[in-house]
Amino acid sequence: MKANALRQRFVALRSNKLFELFVITVIISSALLVGVKTYEISPGKQDLMRLLDWAVTIFFVAELTVRFVAEENRKRFFHDFWNTFDTLIVLVSLIPIDNSDLALVARLVRVFRVLRMVSFIPELRILLVSLIKALPQLGYVALLMFIIFYIYAAIGSTLFESINPVLWGDISISMLTLFRVMTFEDWTDVMYETMVVYPLSWIFYITFIFFTAFAFLNMIIGIVVGVMEHEHAKIQKEDAMQRGEPTLQDLQDQLQELARLVKANSPPERLTDKI
Amino acid sequence: MKANALRQRFVALRSNKLFELFVITVIISSALLVGVKTYEISPGKQDLMRLLDWAVTIFFVAELTVRFVAEENRKRFFHDFWNTFDTLIVLVSLIPIDNSDLALVARLVRVFRVLRMVSFIPELRILLVSLIKALPQLGYVALLMFIIFYIYAAIGSTLFESINPVLWGDISISMLTLFRVMTFEDWTDVMYETMVVYPLSWIFYITFIFFTAFAFLNMIIGIVVGVMEHEHAKIQKEDAMQRGEPTLQDLQDQLQELARLVKANSPPERLTDKI
Amino acid sequence: MKANALRQRFVALRSNKLFELFVITVIISSALLVGVKTYEISPGKQDLMRLLDWAVTIFFVAELTVRFVAEENRKRFFHDFWNTFDTLIVLVSLIPIDNSDLALVARLVRVFRVLRMVSFIPELRILLVSLIKALPQLGYVALLMFIIFYIYAAIGSTLFESINPVLWGDISISMLTLFRVMTFEDWTDVMYETMVVYPLSWIFYITFIFFTAFAFLNMIIGIVVGVMEHEHAKIQKEDAMQRGEPTLQDLQDQLQELARLVKANSPPERLTDKI
Amino acid sequence: MKANALRQRFVALRSNKLFELFVITVIISSALLVGVKTYEISPGKQDLMRLLDWAVTIFFVAELTVRFVAEENRKRFFHDFWNTFDTLIVLVSLIPIDNSDLALVARLVRVFRVLRMVSFIPELRILLVSLIKALPQLGYVALLMFIIFYIYAAIGSTLFESINPVLWGDISISMLTLFRVMTFEDWTDVMYETMVVYPLSWIFYITFIFFTAFAFLNMIIGIVVGVMEHEHAKIQKEDAMQRGEPTLQDLQDQLQELARLVKANSPPERLTDKI
Repeated sequence: MKANALRQRFVALRSNKLFELFVITVIISSALLVGVKTYEISPGKQDLMRLLDWAVTIFFVAELTVRFVAEENRKRFFHDFWNTFDTLIVLVSLIPIDNSDLALVARLVRVFRVLRMVSFIPELRILLVSLIKALPQLGYVALLMFIIFYIYAAIGSTLFESINPVLWGDISISMLTLFRVMTFEDWTDVMYETMVVYPLSWIFYITFIFFTAFAFLNMIIGIVVGVMEHEHAKIQKEDAMQRGEPTLQDLQDQLQELARLVKANSPPERLTDKI
Repeated sequence: MKANALRQRFVALRSNKLFELFVITVIISSALLVGVKTYEISPGKQDLMRLLDWAVTIFFVAELTVRFVAEENRKRFFHDFWNTFDTLIVLVSLIPIDNSDLALVARLVRVFRVLRMVSFIPELRILLVSLIKALPQLGYVALLMFIIFYIYAAIGSTLFESINPVLWGDISISMLTLFRVMTFEDWTDVMYETMVVYPLSWIFYITFIFFTAFAFLNMIIGIVVGVMEHEHAKIQKEDAMQRGEPTLQDLQDQLQELARLVKANSPPERLTDKI
Repeated sequence: MKANALRQRFVALRSNKLFELFVITVIISSALLVGVKTYEISPGKQDLMRLLDWAVTIFFVAELTVRFVAEENRKRFFHDFWNTFDTLIVLVSLIPIDNSDLALVARLVRVFRVLRMVSFIPELRILLVSLIKALPQLGYVALLMFIIFYIYAAIGSTLFESINPVLWGDISISMLTLFRVMTFEDWTDVMYETMVVYPLSWIFYITFIFFTAFAFLNMIIGIVVGVMEHEHAKIQKEDAMQRGEPTLQDLQDQLQELARLVKANSPPERLTDKI
Repeated sequence: MKANALRQRFVALRSNKLFELFVITVIISSALLVGVKTYEISPGKQDLMRLLDWAVTIFFVAELTVRFVAEENRKRFFHDFWNTFDTLIVLVSLIPIDNSDLALVARLVRVFRVLRMVSFIPELRILLVSLIKALPQLGYVALLMFIIFYIYAAIGSTLFESINPVLWGDISISMLTLFRVMTFEDWTDVMYETMVVYPLSWIFYITFIFFTAFAFLNMIIGIVVGVMEHEHAKIQKEDAMQRGEPTLQDLQDQLQELARLVKANSPPERLTDKI
């Protein structure tokens, strides 16, 4: 009974506007804290930072507890992706790290608290989900691009390894070099170097640029067409529905009704005909 | 009475084609003046420049006065964004600056007179307004992009500060470095430097490029879809309206009218039926 | 009479398939000649080149004469843009240049013979004309972009001239530097240099990149929307026309005809009503 | 009879799910083998690699034999592009190469086995075929772009050869340099070098960038419009067909049927008229 009363109070708290405002203030403060720590700070202020850090951590634990207790069906709490996401971020920053070697890791982990901004603002959640949803659609183009990269990297590291092992040492380094060529980053320096030994190696680079540009273009067009088909369908539905304009189907129904009426009128006339 | 006569004369002047032509000539001259001043000029010509500068300033004050007096409701004069815009530009260049330290500021302020070209040509106004209107629509994508930048900058300045404080000194410098990476400007130099200490740091750069490219793509698609929906709606309306072609609604109305007619004809026949 | 017979023969020649093939062979040869001359060639071959050059020139004059004589209305010959274009190219390469200083100019002028390929292939003509037609549509965006460049160049050459006169010497050099920044070509080198004196000058570069990127985006969208509206209108017409599907207008006409019929049938019934 | 029984068994084998899985495993292994060989490997492992290499080759021959025998009409086997493609890849890697000079070539040839991944996955086949189909559509734009490159390369190698023969030595090297300028790769370095001798040579670069950008934009728009028209037609058909909504043609047919009915009803009334 007591637990239920507590739950009721927590549900009320969770939907309280002031509480929401306070939560977002703490999230932004934790984000600012992450940024401030990258500046040179005096030891006195460092203590303050550590204090604020703990305050944020404790508040996050408290807020998560409120949301967990307020949840009607506690088993379903972790079915929600964003709840799991928040819990993980909070839990990880709770791990006590005394070892100075891991202090860096502890600082890095706290950086991800900024991601709570995404989980707190619904519009950003939608954006992120739609980004993730668009990925599989591009799967085969990505695979084709990987194959192009793989073949060119294999050729590159076979032919050019002896020229510059830093750029073409093995297939993974070669793929990184090719990614660099794709972004046009000093790609001519890479090319001129190999052209000293293989004067025709410009064919390697130019064809690679064309293939990736083409695959990339295909990817973009794929996304744009996908988005547009979706929009097109949405617009058409809205056009017909919201404006209350009749569809061709409505017109056909009325025409059939009219034809029925005309037919219903004709028999007597046929009768008079027969008479 | 006298004031009103003056207003009438100013209204006539404001809409005079020759006056308009003269105004645009002065605006272009003031723009050229700004350009000429960046070249080495002899002291004699510098005096001429100063004279022309004052002539332009005085003319701008006069022209603004004409427009202000010609305005029917003077309170509404500053409700118009472009009037306020012009007044500000003119007022600022009126401030007398004797101090030689501020001479530079005075020169810079006059550069913005070129913006009067935007306020004078209606097509450019529309363009600028449409640019500004498109911004809020992109708000959440911009926020997401800022969060991506912030997290990567925090990680970057935590890990790489000791490697190169010029590029990764604090979170704001790191964000500038990341902007550079996003524009592919010598980004491999930045990467190779950190790969000496952290051989896996290429993951940091590649994922960053993918995330920002993806968010950027989303932004572009957002704008394109927005523009296209707008165009689509416009085209559909124009299609139906301007060509005078009937809508489906018109056809339905006529069908109902026809059905009413057919029904009106049927009762007598039912009568004959009954007979 | 003789002149007319000649004209008839030339008209026949002009439309002869073999002659067309020969013309295109000569055009391609003249293009190859231009390319070959950029390689190191032995004096013996140089004489051959000069001979071929003259042969091409003479053939071009002959071909132009054929086309001019074959033209029915000789006054209209130069009304056609492409005829004037060809004549100019041929005439200019006829000018005898003995002066060795101008030998370079003579070589350059012959390069433009390659453009005869564009004037000979109808598809390329259409492409070029459509490119030129698209330009005015973009006029105001181009003007806006120029104003952005002008203002930033004026500010840049005012503030940064003392830092690096090679990049920011006067307004025209500054505009070239800004074009470089827009293409992201070593733009950070330009920025870091000025940030030593003005630590906040990154704002100058970042805002400039945003403004131009935005104006550029607007330009692209402008073209795409323009092309799409055109295509949309074309598709809609073709849809209705070519498939022979009735338009809404056709349906309305038939409905009105039907209503007329029904009305024509009703009076007698009203008569029977009255009876 | 025996041959037929073998064919039946091979047909069954070809469509066996486990066999398919095994084939894809071998293809992926052969791809991994290609990658592993780019790393430093101990002599013992090198022997293992050679063994695996032969195993893959033998399996590929066996798999191809199965598919060939299982084919009903063996003459049509090589009519299929992908069968020829696979056979070529397998045959080439069968050529025994003892000469150590050609060992490199043998390694390179085996890299192309990775392409069997494309021939095995239907979605990748479709993607590649659609890429190839899109090419001719772009033929004339590509030709125009080539002409632009050719003219600028001819001018460049005429004027700038004496300045930097490495970049402007002959027309083919100049075209490579111009491709570099098009990708904005250190293009200002190229420009500043020639501006020392020809201060106005920036016009050469800026106009080149504008022309290629414009032609490139035209190419993209060509593809996008092509894709969209295709999609548009597809959507329209599906809209009408799948939803089962009537077309305007259906409505017109019904209207005509109705008009026929109304007309059929009118004669008796005319009769009554005459009475």
